[in-house]
Amino acid sequence: MDFASILGIVSGLALIISAIFMGGDFHIFINVPGIMIVVGGTIAATLLTFQFKDVISAFRGAFHVFSQERSKPLEMINTMLDLSKVSHRNGLLALANVETNSKFLKRACNMMADAASEEFIRRTLQTEIDSLIARHYTVQDIFKKMASYAPAFGMLGTLIGLVQMLSQLDDPASIGPAMAVALLTTFYGSMMSTMLFLPIAGKLRSRTMMEVQNLEIIREGAISILSNDNYLNVYERLSSYIPEAQRQSVSAKKGKK
Amino acid sequence: MDFASILGIVSGLALIISAIFMGGDFHIFINVPGIMIVVGGTIAATLLTFQFKDVISAFRGAFHVFSQERSKPLEMINTMLDLSKVSHRNGLLALANVETNSKFLKRACNMMADAASEEFIRRTLQTEIDSLIARHYTVQDIFKKMASYAPAFGMLGTLIGLVQMLSQLDDPASIGPAMAVALLTTFYGSMMSTMLFLPIAGKLRSRTMMEVQNLEIIREGAISILSNDNYLNVYERLSSYIPEAQRQSVSAKKGKK
Amino acid sequence: MDFASILGIVSGLALIISAIFMGGDFHIFINVPGIMIVVGGTIAATLLTFQFKDVISAFRGAFHVFSQERSKPLEMINTMLDLSKVSHRNGLLALANVETNSKFLKRACNMMADAASEEFIRRTLQTEIDSLIARHYTVQDIFKKMASYAPAFGMLGTLIGLVQMLSQLDDPASIGPAMAVALLTTFYGSMMSTMLFLPIAGKLRSRTMMEVQNLEIIREGAISILSNDNYLNVYERLSSYIPEAQRQSVSAKKGKK
Amino acid sequence: MDFASILGIVSGLALIISAIFMGGDFHIFINVPGIMIVVGGTIAATLLTFQFKDVISAFRGAFHVFSQERSKPLEMINTMLDLSKVSHRNGLLALANVETNSKFLKRACNMMADAASEEFIRRTLQTEIDSLIARHYTVQDIFKKMASYAPAFGMLGTLIGLVQMLSQLDDPASIGPAMAVALLTTFYGSMMSTMLFLPIAGKLRSRTMMEVQNLEIIREGAISILSNDNYLNVYERLSSYIPEAQRQSVSAKKGKK
Amino acid sequence: MDFASILGIVSGLALIISAIFMGGDFHIFINVPGIMIVVGGTIAATLLTFQFKDVISAFRGAFHVFSQERSKPLEMINTMLDLSKVSHRNGLLALANVETNSKFLKRACNMMADAASEEFIRRTLQTEIDSLIARHYTVQDIFKKMASYAPAFGMLGTLIGLVQMLSQLDDPASIGPAMAVALLTTFYGSMMSTMLFLPIAGKLRSRTMMEVQNLEIIREGAISILSNDNYLNVYERLSSYIPEAQRQSVSAKKGKK
Repeated sequence: MDFASILGIVSGLALIISAIFMGGDFHIFINVPGIMIVVGGTIAATLLTFQFKDVISAFRGAFHVFSQERSKPLEMINTMLDLSKVSHRNGLLALANVETNSKFLKRACNMMADAASEEFIRRTLQTEIDSLIARHYTVQDIFKKMASYAPAFGMLGTLIGLVQMLSQLDDPASIGPAMAVALLTTFYGSMMSTMLFLPIAGKLRSRTMMEVQNLEIIREGAISILSNDNYLNVYERLSSYIPEAQRQSVSAKKGKK
Repeated sequence: MDFASILGIVSGLALIISAIFMGGDFHIFINVPGIMIVVGGTIAATLLTFQFKDVISAFRGAFHVFSQERSKPLEMINTMLDLSKVSHRNGLLALANVETNSKFLKRACNMMADAASEEFIRRTLQTEIDSLIARHYTVQDIFKKMASYAPAFGMLGTLIGLVQMLSQLDDPASIGPAMAVALLTTFYGSMMSTMLFLPIAGKLRSRTMMEVQNLEIIREGAISILSNDNYLNVYERLSSYIPEAQRQSVSAKKGKK
Repeated sequence: MDFASILGIVSGLALIISAIFMGGDFHIFINVPGIMIVVGGTIAATLLTFQFKDVISAFRGAFHVFSQERSKPLEMINTMLDLSKVSHRNGLLALANVETNSKFLKRACNMMADAASEEFIRRTLQTEIDSLIARHYTVQDIFKKMASYAPAFGMLGTLIGLVQMLSQLDDPASIGPAMAVALLTTFYGSMMSTMLFLPIAGKLRSRTMMEVQNLEIIREGAISILSNDNYLNVYERLSSYIPEAQRQSVSAKKGKK
Repeated sequence: MDFASILGIVSGLALIISAIFMGGDFHIFINVPGIMIVVGGTIAATLLTFQFKDVISAFRGAFHVFSQERSKPLEMINTMLDLSKVSHRNGLLALANVETNSKFLKRACNMMADAASEEFIRRTLQTEIDSLIARHYTVQDIFKKMASYAPAFGMLGTLIGLVQMLSQLDDPASIGPAMAVALLTTFYGSMMSTMLFLPIAGKLRSRTMMEVQNLEIIREGAISILSNDNYLNVYERLSSYIPEAQRQSVSAKKGKK
Repeated sequence: MDFASILGIVSGLALIISAIFMGGDFHIFINVPGIMIVVGGTIAATLLTFQFKDVISAFRGAFHVFSQERSKPLEMINTMLDLSKVSHRNGLLALANVETNSKFLKRACNMMADAASEEFIRRTLQTEIDSLIARHYTVQDIFKKMASYAPAFGMLGTLIGLVQMLSQLDDPASIGPAMAVALLTTFYGSMMSTMLFLPIAGKLRSRTMMEVQNLEIIREGAISILSNDNYLNVYERLSSYIPEAQRQSVSAKKGKK
């Protein structure tokens, strides 16, 4: 799990909890039926909205995304430049023996070694990128929907509490506490949405964008290698994907080559 | 009806109902005029927004979608690979005799057997996919609009109740119960939207995306078969549509072939 | 006016009115200055937002759309198949004499009879479809903007009423009725938006989609006729626009031909 | 300034003001600090969001748009048909001498007279249309942002007022008037947004769409003239941009030519 | 830092602060736990949503954007026209020696001097523009998300305060001040969003659009120079990017050339 996520979750919860403690009793913020309505309702509506297996794989995907380290674009460019050297020295066939833990890169290498046409490689890899985006989008969508279901069930809980309180106005002294309890579900729903579901959906999205960029670098690199571009041209093409500050100056590269 | 949907509906309703019972009388949550305003108003506005036949077919479509089982992408790829074998052994004409309960696949086979051009097949099947997406979009749109009409009529009902209560402030003791009744329509509208219409619209959408993916596999497979690609190439093209984990390794396939 | 629209308007109004009557006096829901603020303000803001002639033509268009019957896609396909027969029997020139009350179809026929190029016909008809979509979009947009102006003026009216009430808290007994009156403009604005403007905008949109589909069938049909496709091919191309259930089986068609 | 805009502004303000007068004192709706927070805050946030020169040019553009008359599509088509005649009679070079107050048309004429290629003309004029859309979009965006800043500052003002009132609950009699004053900023913000900024943004948008259509007619007309289309063909191409009702029947045109 | 930004921030804060002072005590608007919840919560959720390095670079980028001066489109066009002259006089190779502090322009010059193909230059520069847009979009997105997290944490803080107040209704005199404190977090959250995060996100967006326009001028100019267009043609192509008012008349240019 990356540093920013841990810092974010820990500090966010610490702030909320300390704010609650400063105001006095912590137990007035615990309401089991309220928690059940918001948590249970959100899960129920999510199961109704999506396929069961998609929900399961979304949670697994979320865990995966927070724990796993991805390669940086710069490393990916260097990998492609190495493959370019391999291809120039030993021919495209040598790419079939490349060892890598990226199945996408392995696949691109196999297609190059099989002497597939540029158009076949481009279309096949693009289809794979598109369907990866579609699958990741579903996962993000599940958390976005949960982020909107949680406050909705919070409001439903508050409405139930208000209706019950208002229809039994016998004891004015009980109005305050009853309303406090009613507001708790709104609090639960908003907190789950703001501190959990929205950030997870956002992080999944930024990870997807990073991963897609890496796959695009592989796709463009593979096509560049296939058309037998020289080392500098492969570098020129791929370096467009990274910010100027990360690029080594082209002239330096020229010298090195 | 799939497992997740049943689980979702049952557990969601159970939570709301138990929350209501825990607070005391259930009958204070039943208000027939309020239910009529929200349910009736939502239906009225929906009829005004859409064509009558579209509304009917949307409800039928929703029922259909929850009950029907669709083929998985992997099965569809295997079907196309089988057709590829048939075509290689017996020629494209043999595809005319393929038995299938997918009219889209049947149509693709007929066009292949008729020796239609790749461009004709691609455009005809794409038009069919596009117009299927358009029709399904209308169905989803009906439930999305209902999801926004229901809370709107809930609020209208609450406003009516508030105006009536406020203009007759004779008896302060009646304020609470009158306000409780007024809030009920907001409760009905929010609950219908959150637990019924939004999830249905979401599920319809994810089903459409799955179905479109299957049709795209058929389209790409048909074009691949038509251009006489070998078994491995057809597999390469189509396997891009499924996640890596579901794919059999390409080398294993190679051996099998 | 179509059945669903009448049913929707009548039942919607009946529900609201009966809800009001059940609560007692109807006259407490009539507040002429409030109606003037919401209705007048909405019209004023709409006039400020759009061109005068666009607003007039939007209202005329809305009336038109609710009263007029459109041809169904299936009928349009049959029309194009008939034209295909005419063209095969008597040549393209014969299309100049086709009688039709669709100016778009008439135009397509004239261009075919004039032996215009496929590219000229496609671009000219596409430009016409695009500019029809743009004009209809403006009409929908006017009703969508009215749907958002009406509640906004409702809220302005309520704010005016609240400020007046709060600044003159002399008589506590008058608070209730004054607040009831203040809430009325919110009620008017929401009701106009939910029961009138949003449904009209939605219906206009679904009509536009239907009309565009018909025009696309004409465009594709015309191009198919021009390239001298046989009857079956014209049918294959166009039938993609309608759902499977409405299509006659291709083999049956084959036999008929 | 066009008739609809004047009518809209005058009638809208008249309604609001008469509603205020009917409720009694007008001066309770005047609160100088409140006006300063909403107006000043909106301007401050707008200056922070955009470049200074863009804000200035947006206001100038808004004034321009309300005062200036644009040519109608039909007139533009007639202009292009006239140019087509000029070109047929005197050659493309004669177009260099065309007098027009549209710099875009002048530019198209110059390029035609310079015998630029169709592709060069299309791309140059398209780039100009695109960058005009981008500039106009910025102007609309400024008014849209102001339409969202105004109510936000209104709410900030109300919050300030509420906090001040609630922390000094010494005199219950002052609660009402203090709350009325607090609500005034919300009223100012909503009114400015609904009656000023949103309509201006909307009008700017519809003017842009009209202007772009005119430029597209010039672009298509110029290309049509360049490829030496006959009068009827130029008319056919361009008449697609206007609704059927405004078109003269093609056969009538044919006779005229 | 540009003039408008300074003016905006200073005048906005001055308005809010003077509004607070006019109402009396300033200290009632200071609530350290409330500030911690809103500021800390917003930062926590932002860290959870994005990568740590992206958040850091967003803040650095925001500072950069407010302080740095960008070249205007007109200057960029003049630069490209100068390069066009250099290329005509001394050949494309001379472009390798061009001194510029824009790395993008330097790169375009290097590729032209290396005699890269038009298609290679267009694609490489377009990829760079696209990935610059993607990176800047992430930065804007961070501020947009903060603009939505801040009011959400403000509401959470208010809910915590309300629940605490309502559950301890012992002393009616404390209701007002307690509620005032509870409302403060909503005030903090709205103010941070409206006066800080939204304007920054907006300014970043308008800067990106300006920068992209400059890069597009370089791209189009480079391609124009490469295809050996004459001075006037380069000018014609590039001047489409700026409004008519900024253009020198084409005829004047003609004379100068």
